[in-house]
Amino acid sequence: MASMLLSRQLTCCLQQNSRLLVFGHRYISQAAAKIDVDFDYDGPLMKTEVPGPRSRELMKKLNGIQNAEAVHFFCNYEESRGNYLVDVDGNRMLDLYSQISSIPIAKLCQSKEMSVPQLPTTVLCCALHPDRLQKDKERRGYSHPSLIKLLQQPQNLSTFINRPALGILPPENFTEKLKESLLSVAPKGLSQVMTMSCGSCSNENAFKAIFMWYRNKERGHNNVTKEELESCMINQPPGCPDYAMLSFMGGFHGRTLGCLATTHSKAIHKLDIPSLDWPIAPFPRLKYPLEDFVKENQQEEARCLEEVEDLIVKYRKKKKIVAGIIVEPIQSEGGDNHASDDFFRKLRDIARKHGCAFLVDEVQTGGGCTGKFWAHEHWGLDDPADVVTFSKKMMTGGFFHKEEFRPNAPYRIFNTWLGDPSKNLMLAEVIKVIKTEDLLNNATHAGKALLTGLLDLQARYPHLISRVRGRGTFCSFDTPNDATRNKLITIARNKGVVLGGCGDRSIRFRPTLIFKDHHAHLFLNIFSDILANFK
Amino acid sequence: MASMLLSRQLTCCLQQNSRLLVFGHRYISQAAAKIDVDFDYDGPLMKTEVPGPRSRELMKKLNGIQNAEAVHFFCNYEESRGNYLVDVDGNRMLDLYSQISSIPIAKLCQSKEMSVPQLPTTVLCCALHPDRLQKDKERRGYSHPSLIKLLQQPQNLSTFINRPALGILPPENFTEKLKESLLSVAPKGLSQVMTMSCGSCSNENAFKAIFMWYRNKERGHNNVTKEELESCMINQPPGCPDYAMLSFMGGFHGRTLGCLATTHSKAIHKLDIPSLDWPIAPFPRLKYPLEDFVKENQQEEARCLEEVEDLIVKYRKKKKIVAGIIVEPIQSEGGDNHASDDFFRKLRDIARKHGCAFLVDEVQTGGGCTGKFWAHEHWGLDDPADVVTFSKKMMTGGFFHKEEFRPNAPYRIFNTWLGDPSKNLMLAEVIKVIKTEDLLNNATHAGKALLTGLLDLQARYPHLISRVRGRGTFCSFDTPNDATRNKLITIARNKGVVLGGCGDRSIRFRPTLIFKDHHAHLFLNIFSDILANFK
Repeated sequence: MASMLLSRQLTCCLQQNSRLLVFGHRYISQAAAKIDVDFDYDGPLMKTEVPGPRSRELMKKLNGIQNAEAVHFFCNYEESRGNYLVDVDGNRMLDLYSQISSIPIAKLCQSKEMSVPQLPTTVLCCALHPDRLQKDKERRGYSHPSLIKLLQQPQNLSTFINRPALGILPPENFTEKLKESLLSVAPKGLSQVMTMSCGSCSNENAFKAIFMWYRNKERGHNNVTKEELESCMINQPPGCPDYAMLSFMGGFHGRTLGCLATTHSKAIHKLDIPSLDWPIAPFPRLKYPLEDFVKENQQEEARCLEEVEDLIVKYRKKKKIVAGIIVEPIQSEGGDNHASDDFFRKLRDIARKHGCAFLVDEVQTGGGCTGKFWAHEHWGLDDPADVVTFSKKMMTGGFFHKEEFRPNAPYRIFNTWLGDPSKNLMLAEVIKVIKTEDLLNNATHAGKALLTGLLDLQARYPHLISRVRGRGTFCSFDTPNDATRNKLITIARNKGVVLGGCGDRSIRFRPTLIFKDHHAHLFLNIFSDILANFK
Repeated sequence: MASMLLSRQLTCCLQQNSRLLVFGHRYISQAAAKIDVDFDYDGPLMKTEVPGPRSRELMKKLNGIQNAEAVHFFCNYEESRGNYLVDVDGNRMLDLYSQISSIPIAKLCQSKEMSVPQLPTTVLCCALHPDRLQKDKERRGYSHPSLIKLLQQPQNLSTFINRPALGILPPENFTEKLKESLLSVAPKGLSQVMTMSCGSCSNENAFKAIFMWYRNKERGHNNVTKEELESCMINQPPGCPDYAMLSFMGGFHGRTLGCLATTHSKAIHKLDIPSLDWPIAPFPRLKYPLEDFVKENQQEEARCLEEVEDLIVKYRKKKKIVAGIIVEPIQSEGGDNHASDDFFRKLRDIARKHGCAFLVDEVQTGGGCTGKFWAHEHWGLDDPADVVTFSKKMMTGGFFHKEEFRPNAPYRIFNTWLGDPSKNLMLAEVIKVIKTEDLLNNATHAGKALLTGLLDLQARYPHLISRVRGRGTFCSFDTPNDATRNKLITIARNKGVVLGGCGDRSIRFRPTLIFKDHHAHLFLNIFSDILANFK
């Protein structure tokens, strides 16, 4: 375990830590207070409001060359460590959003002597003068022997040097690195993997693989016709068949045109963009606490599943074939909407019954934050998903799929880069750390601490917090409305906690995998004070 | 100039170089023979057929986890240098394809003491033991003082460490690096820039910016309606208006669903994928040599332009609005199809006349290979293009646009990563090298040597080579048919030259920007022999 490797540990109490904790009573266990200040900051430290003057100055500059209104603040990544994000005004914040859930381990993982995901950092630090290296080593511990070794192996070096066209001229270690990284965590039954540059490209290409699979099924042993080859060149059937992906209201699957036709989380994502007439089913709207609404929720899920079947039949009648169903294990951008494991098992059955592919979008849920490497592993499917897409915490985009979804010819699923092998190399190391440091169990454990605390806050502040829900650290709650939610996020940020919103009134938790119980307790103490003083 | 900085130069004659040159007469100037073996290999060196046994073994392994039929061979990037690609069987090939035109300077640029694009290499090499560093320095010269300095600046280090969500939490130097890199080469009149992860995402998001711009134009001072906000959530008009991009037959703009609706280069790209009914205009099919077909080619271009206007009107009548026109300066994947500068100026005029945005896709043509940084700069437009997309040689995807195409609200053009700042950092250095080493003029010069040689080969082997064409090093020719083309590419590869095909019978040249006259002559000598012996 990481803690055994620590060269020294300091125990300090949160009370010593900060002016942030002067309000409210301390209902959270003080066990939280044991933290390793040798490798992690010991808490938030705020110097200005956020965004501060320097951030505002930089925002103005950036706004000269692109719309910068979405920028929260500018970051000093050099000073950011572990679970803490430091901004350009010197404010240090506990980061529970981790770059929209895209950092697997940490900006600068400090959880043992040194850790791995920040490979380039290490590289760069080592590139400095030996004295400086030593200083960095002392200050941050960037000297894990396995990393040094990794860097000294010429075949690894070259992966960082050149960005090849992976589909035609892969580096020697390409397959090996895919096996060490993605395939070592492949969902059960999915032996095939393609890498892509981002989440949208992953879903777009997964759709394509599904459409090809479906058409080949229809085609049977017949050859592609001349008419198909000619009509596809002008975007017309039969070459471009009238196929569809069925998606769910509230789902988010990316913002390129194909993905966007399956995204239904916020109008701002879709307004003014032409789309496709693809079926959209309702996603269950569960009532909380779940134990009080067992029957209602079952009925709600049954209603949604029935609608899925109806839509498949209805669209088929109008000659638009539903080739696949896409779903997130937890609708993330759309408001952290959960459904039961039973719902997903039944959805999978419906897909099979109607001959549709079952695509699970794990772009946001994948990578371990729910306590399993893939959130859909919680469902206990008998028949695996057909296709699983990923990106964000996986550092590279891409998708796993069953062998029958393999393109039947080269260049059908293809682009220039097909991802970036330097990301695969880093991912291989990240996955090693996840395994070595038992970070899936950590997500379960820390998530429980967070969820328990949120439920407690909900009991104390029911007018501000409702529908507390979560799996692992992938937690969230609702606020009364958009304005209250945004105000809470702003206050939290100024108290040293970075939170994210989702849906129209939810706050979501997306910490890295090295988020520990004591970080949960630290947050809960700060947030308890915020709620106590909220007007 | 780079040559002045060389520590030593060796002059060697190509005749000494290789068994590759024993056939045919040496009609190409021997000036080609002066090469810098200190920094570049002195020619191809073939040990096995390609793919060799090791490549075949690796292909079989990769094929176990994905369709690997498109793989040409596996590469040893560690041993690849300058214009030479080395495979895992030890074959060293002159690379005229540069990873589908995506390497700006070189895999390992050796054109002076050391150069810049291979930043991570340097980093990694510097991370090694000092003795090894010294050895590498001697062997390859990886020690440019400005790079070391770059690496020692903490604000640059951090850019390599963390991949932020650029749209919300950019690093401090984000704007500065965009100014040093992309904005320092922005096409005239385009002050705004967005970064993306790849070429397809660049075009997809450019389409979206165009659709938003068009809708806002239609909307005038009116607010977005409730009906728009609601209908867009279910993919329906008016929220998702029936807008279209007009594209050209033979064009290639990417493979995600929106892009694919504008791509019409090969059936394999489009077959089985549902599409959109968007207008497709014919692209001029010019006759060569141009000077012999002036009138015919003018008529051909006029015909195509007329069709563009007709399509805009025709689609408008059926309530499908052409919001924008997308075109490549040279249709690349579709077969290196050129049109005159006049054609493009008139096309720009048509776009303006009909209120359509004019989008120039420079994903393959951009970055200097035509002798100007952007191929469309050759046209001499009075009114700049509205949007210009890029990727490949630019290391990051993205698009430039006029200020009026700026999204009017945050999160409208957005995704988690929005590119990768480490690529911007590298690009800034690459652009410095392009400027310092006058590589645009080099592309013009080396391209002229290549084109002159190809014309000579065409005169000698008219049954094998026709329609020789090019701008800068962006050259190509036609062969009689697909089978001959593929055979020529295979023979060339086994003689130590990597070429690419495009269209149904063309061979395209896509060397890096450090491709020099002597590389052109080396290729021409080898290819002359191939043609002389072709059966």
